[in-house]
Amino acid sequence: MAVEVRQMKWWGWGEEGTGFDISNKPDLWPFIRSAAGLEEEPEPSPPVSMEEVQLPEQKTHEAFVSAVSSTLEAGQLRQDREERLVHAYGKSFRDLWRARTGISDAAPDYVIYPNSEADVAAVIKAAVTHDVVVIPYGGGSNIAGCLEAKGNGGRTVISLDMKRMDRVLEIDEEAHIARIQCGTLGPGMEQQLNGKGFTLGHFPDSFVYSTVGGWVATRSAGMQSDKYGKIEDMVLSLRMVTPSGTIVTRTVPKSSNGIDVNHLCIGSEGILGVITEVTLQVHRLPERREIYGFLFPDFESGIKAIRECVARECMPMMVRFNDHEKTALSAAFKSKPTPLEALVSKAVKAYLVRVKGFDLSKSCIMLSGFEGDAKTFRYTRRKVTGIYKQHGAFSLGAGVGKTFEKSKYDFPHLRDYLMDRRIMADVSETSTLWSNILPLYHAAMDAIAQATRDTGQKAFVSCHISHNYHSGASLYFTFGCVQLPGRELEQYLYIKKAAEDAFMKNGGTLSHHHAVGTEHLPWIEEDISPAGVKAVQALKDGLDPNAIMNPGKIVPSPKAPYDWGLGEEAIARFAGHRQEDERPAKSTA
Amino acid sequence: MAVEVRQMKWWGWGEEGTGFDISNKPDLWPFIRSAAGLEEEPEPSPPVSMEEVQLPEQKTHEAFVSAVSSTLEAGQLRQDREERLVHAYGKSFRDLWRARTGISDAAPDYVIYPNSEADVAAVIKAAVTHDVVVIPYGGGSNIAGCLEAKGNGGRTVISLDMKRMDRVLEIDEEAHIARIQCGTLGPGMEQQLNGKGFTLGHFPDSFVYSTVGGWVATRSAGMQSDKYGKIEDMVLSLRMVTPSGTIVTRTVPKSSNGIDVNHLCIGSEGILGVITEVTLQVHRLPERREIYGFLFPDFESGIKAIRECVARECMPMMVRFNDHEKTALSAAFKSKPTPLEALVSKAVKAYLVRVKGFDLSKSCIMLSGFEGDAKTFRYTRRKVTGIYKQHGAFSLGAGVGKTFEKSKYDFPHLRDYLMDRRIMADVSETSTLWSNILPLYHAAMDAIAQATRDTGQKAFVSCHISHNYHSGASLYFTFGCVQLPGRELEQYLYIKKAAEDAFMKNGGTLSHHHAVGTEHLPWIEEDISPAGVKAVQALKDGLDPNAIMNPGKIVPSPKAPYDWGLGEEAIARFAGHRQEDERPAKSTA
Repeated sequence: MAVEVRQMKWWGWGEEGTGFDISNKPDLWPFIRSAAGLEEEPEPSPPVSMEEVQLPEQKTHEAFVSAVSSTLEAGQLRQDREERLVHAYGKSFRDLWRARTGISDAAPDYVIYPNSEADVAAVIKAAVTHDVVVIPYGGGSNIAGCLEAKGNGGRTVISLDMKRMDRVLEIDEEAHIARIQCGTLGPGMEQQLNGKGFTLGHFPDSFVYSTVGGWVATRSAGMQSDKYGKIEDMVLSLRMVTPSGTIVTRTVPKSSNGIDVNHLCIGSEGILGVITEVTLQVHRLPERREIYGFLFPDFESGIKAIRECVARECMPMMVRFNDHEKTALSAAFKSKPTPLEALVSKAVKAYLVRVKGFDLSKSCIMLSGFEGDAKTFRYTRRKVTGIYKQHGAFSLGAGVGKTFEKSKYDFPHLRDYLMDRRIMADVSETSTLWSNILPLYHAAMDAIAQATRDTGQKAFVSCHISHNYHSGASLYFTFGCVQLPGRELEQYLYIKKAAEDAFMKNGGTLSHHHAVGTEHLPWIEEDISPAGVKAVQALKDGLDPNAIMNPGKIVPSPKAPYDWGLGEEAIARFAGHRQEDERPAKSTA
Repeated sequence: MAVEVRQMKWWGWGEEGTGFDISNKPDLWPFIRSAAGLEEEPEPSPPVSMEEVQLPEQKTHEAFVSAVSSTLEAGQLRQDREERLVHAYGKSFRDLWRARTGISDAAPDYVIYPNSEADVAAVIKAAVTHDVVVIPYGGGSNIAGCLEAKGNGGRTVISLDMKRMDRVLEIDEEAHIARIQCGTLGPGMEQQLNGKGFTLGHFPDSFVYSTVGGWVATRSAGMQSDKYGKIEDMVLSLRMVTPSGTIVTRTVPKSSNGIDVNHLCIGSEGILGVITEVTLQVHRLPERREIYGFLFPDFESGIKAIRECVARECMPMMVRFNDHEKTALSAAFKSKPTPLEALVSKAVKAYLVRVKGFDLSKSCIMLSGFEGDAKTFRYTRRKVTGIYKQHGAFSLGAGVGKTFEKSKYDFPHLRDYLMDRRIMADVSETSTLWSNILPLYHAAMDAIAQATRDTGQKAFVSCHISHNYHSGASLYFTFGCVQLPGRELEQYLYIKKAAEDAFMKNGGTLSHHHAVGTEHLPWIEEDISPAGVKAVQALKDGLDPNAIMNPGKIVPSPKAPYDWGLGEEAIARFAGHRQEDERPAKSTA
């Protein structure tokens, strides 16, 4: 139990020693330089050394420490500089930029590693008694500011790192469910499940560095959600320690027991309590599994194809459809082709253009995965491929899928590589109805590009569709540009605001699977309505009357007021270049 | 808009003039007489006349009436005897027994029929101001005591009948969603959807007499839930008027916007506010659709077959699997066979027994429906039938399914027929994991039978499985016996308690789709845990601080204390006949 958990770098993605291998991607940096309009090689901009970070003074609390000392063993409570720094931030652009430049607005005063739910309960009890703030911490991969320790009214703050609670406790091989501790990271969980022939089927981009508890607390979505659902669709029951007692729900498939208490805990982002374990539905490992690539003439034709698969109730287990810009970025990831490959590629291109009438400046790549027993696999693949072809798709075969599989968790590393080169890169995602996919897509693409131009930079904006539902899908935007020296954060916030404003104005939601945290706080009232905010606040007030649980996340909190960081003046300065009728909405600070 | 809505009988199921046609079911009454051990024809026991019911005196409230009078038109506010009586009860056994015998513990003081959400908001506003209790009322089909007006601290009570708000407001034919007013009854809704080529796919047994709002407020399940899901799986967004404002969620397929506000409203049984409209996913009417009958050698083999369909991700759109007792009851529903049918039936029976080795005293009937485009229909039917046959099933063809379709909504009428003959009949349902289906089945069957015997009567107990999930299924128990003169309600409660105790003790949930109301209140804390009750209470306190919204449902309320009605003494009296070690748990009163 006392094995040390491994943490991500305090300043970037992944463990120390991992990173982005660009050596076999000769086209990538030239592509990015061109997309960002960088004429010269930028000055390197590495993170500061750990010693250079100015950590806020630790707010010690002897009475609290004494209260938990009878429960915790040596090594469970930490207060060294590195622990505090590692737990100060998640991995949003805002987080990383501050970490890399040595700005530490806040850091927890202590880090506690519970071994058990009893440990968690003892910490929460002592925290209530001593008015200490508790921030649950899983893998630390959150990009919505859910882990921010800032502004807690001068109270001592604990980061409760759950990663020692990392076991699959029980698998019911007949009911196909697994009871899992919440600090379990993706790979360790799959390893334990695979050993019994099962998989959860939940593979978010953050998979390697995110935990089961984090997924449930943020309503996470994985790459194969088209088959397995979002994490909230997999939960049968859970346990959550709150300042008002431990919520325990029954492990049954479905119920009509009033308001669904599971759903009061799912998505609660730590503001009500600490989820300690969940029972999730799992699936037998599929007999057969393969991912294929398809090229569509344009974004619209691919969307129509997915839409038709949904309507005909025949979906792949994974669909990841890039718009043309994201297709170009993906293409730049490929390793140097051998001469034969180059030849094939040339021949294929010629065929597509001359025979199929493709305009290669518009074509879009789609990855589609199939799995199941051999019969289901073949039946689904045949039916789906038929639908794709009716919409003009050209099959690229399984090679593209294999390449994707090899590097599917590498993408978040790219941001560190870019920030080393003074380039901002980030993502914002939403979801909307099939009838609104293209309007929202165009509105958000334009808004992000316009905002980037407002900051005086060339915009790279792209989008992919990666989670499909009966009524609609998610749109995931990736954007970036050269940073404005001295105004890096303002610039980022200005562009981020444009994306979120566009989602709200055009029938989207503030996030499809990245949570609210503090980063999306300015849009929560518009998303769930003022009375909806009151409802969430009512839960918070009832279960956590002293507001010790991760205050200021999801809903604004008087105990943890939050300045989003983008003032009227900054907005006006950026928007100044634009025509009057193009000016953006006012501040969200 | 001002068209009069149609109501069910105040004392039974269905509209006046409808009822149970036994004339073409010659075997049914003999079967029931034998099952209940009735040697002689019972004395008829018809409901009292409406005039004989002693309605509690109306608690008028001039100030409230005056406050809403500027909003409401003539006919929207009613206070006549019949309106009050019709809205006094739902359709639980407890409700019907009291109504039929002229006992009216409570009745609303006024009935209001809103035409619009603005009407609802005006009523709620005036109710807050004047401390008037509001009970939302849909079709009135609830059997969990959700509509009970009893015990509201002497306050004036309004029944808010939503059935004038009965329109499908909008269908998005590309996103396959429909925005529907909450007072819309099942048939009217399907008619409006079918007109555009769509269906909701939600067909609860109460379909004809229940509303969209009622379904959402109680987490209803329909016969085709295996394909379409429970109602909570269909909701994209909703509007709910609460005393603290109107909750409005966004119509998007999925989100990560904190705690899911839709799920704070779904299942809230009127205790937080009035759901006025919901946007639900709808489906294109299937090209082909058929229901088939299968006979399984026993209950266990059929369960294994369903289990395997689920695991192999190939489910019918409907599975309704009767245990042997329910199979016998169903068989007694059939109309008189023509000689040819009798002959076939004889031949089939002989074949089953001699060739297939069936023991007909154990065999169980399963109805399975398939639908979709022609290809999906055939593929699924072939695969499922193959699985069934591996588990020993014998195909009975589509005739059984056609008979089922004709009378699928008739079953609730049977209870009135039986109560006319001094026979109690009721249902209790739960859900559990595949690994626990048989243990829970046997435990509940035994408990219900034992409790019935404790009351000195022969027990009829049966079960069917009708909603299947990845991890488990629902078990739906139907039970009945000859009533104990003078102790009819106690007898019912004693048996009902045995069923619910068995669910709780053996890994079930208090209800799979019938709600908590007051009928299941004694088990709510055991089901969702004390901290779960606190969470629901927190929502209630926050959104409805004066507890005007349907108080006393889901969670116990100091403003509406509720006596379940079964005291220690009654329990001891019934249990007196049993051995010491078989005695039931103590009172839940």
